[in-house]
Amino acid sequence: MTDPSSDGEVGSPASTAEDPDRDLRIRVDHVGIAVADRDTLAPVLELLGGELIADEPADGFRWIQYELGDLSRIELIEPTAPDTFLTDFLDRNGTGFHHVTFEVAAIDDVVAHLRDHDLRVVDRADHEKYREAFVSPRSTGGVLFQLMEYEPGYCEAYGEPGVGHDLLTDHSYLDPAESH
Amino acid sequence: MTDPSSDGEVGSPASTAEDPDRDLRIRVDHVGIAVADRDTLAPVLELLGGELIADEPADGFRWIQYELGDLSRIELIEPTAPDTFLTDFLDRNGTGFHHVTFEVAAIDDVVAHLRDHDLRVVDRADHEKYREAFVSPRSTGGVLFQLMEYEPGYCEAYGEPGVGHDLLTDHSYLDPAESH
Repeated sequence: MTDPSSDGEVGSPASTAEDPDRDLRIRVDHVGIAVADRDTLAPVLELLGGELIADEPADGFRWIQYELGDLSRIELIEPTAPDTFLTDFLDRNGTGFHHVTFEVAAIDDVVAHLRDHDLRVVDRADHEKYREAFVSPRSTGGVLFQLMEYEPGYCEAYGEPGVGHDLLTDHSYLDPAESH
Repeated sequence: MTDPSSDGEVGSPASTAEDPDRDLRIRVDHVGIAVADRDTLAPVLELLGGELIADEPADGFRWIQYELGDLSRIELIEPTAPDTFLTDFLDRNGTGFHHVTFEVAAIDDVVAHLRDHDLRVVDRADHEKYREAFVSPRSTGGVLFQLMEYEPGYCEAYGEPGVGHDLLTDHSYLDPAESH
């Protein structure tokens, strides 16, 4: 946590309502790849040493995560229903990189920060094991960034988040005994 | 290193010439995004906390790397000449995710492994500070994977590779005093 007295943004001439106490820690978590059929790419990820750590249904698609040596991850998303965002993407682009997910320590702080700077952030949602939002492609020239804050229980359900997770040490689920 | 006596691939019925001593360690290193103009996306990466760590000319483009909290990185590639792979990509796709780079400990081992399994690996090249190859999009349904092995001096030139780098501990440049 930052010390609010140590960084004199409050009262500065800046016109934004930005809060210096916001926790903006962030890391690349995984890369999402759209595939019409997982068999297009799953064998390649396995040859590259990827270990299957999750294969889960979602609304109209399933997400299949492979962990590499240091817990860096690649996710395949495969449609399981017609007429979704994913089939639209595949119709337009074919198999291809779909999104990059950033893990954040405090999603609402990051969302507020981006919105203060006039970026569009959409689809903010709370799920059982994670909280998410998306930086709209309208604000990025067309690429899709997902923001995710993991809730307690995420690790147990899907394996450890990436190795850089030790930077986000105020997440009590990392080691409840050491949380502060 | 694996112990060749511990994993009885040699003499197994498998018909590949695969070498069990190959070092196949790998991690996601960075995500490359094609941009017609860096100003499309650089301010967004800066708002997300990205720190500029490299802005370097290459043949017909420049690559601009942003490091996030844990040394995970995003790279923008921006054309500096007409009629290159990159302008072709942008003409077809516009701004968008272009490649994922995997850092490997031993590129020729990984390339041999993939080729043994009939994947196309192209553009194997040795540069002053890194060795590279690409898994052809023909073998992946259309996505581009770069493989990179860092040479001594890469860190000094461009900052530390990602935090997962401690898995690749036989790279003497990580800490020459501790190499073995």
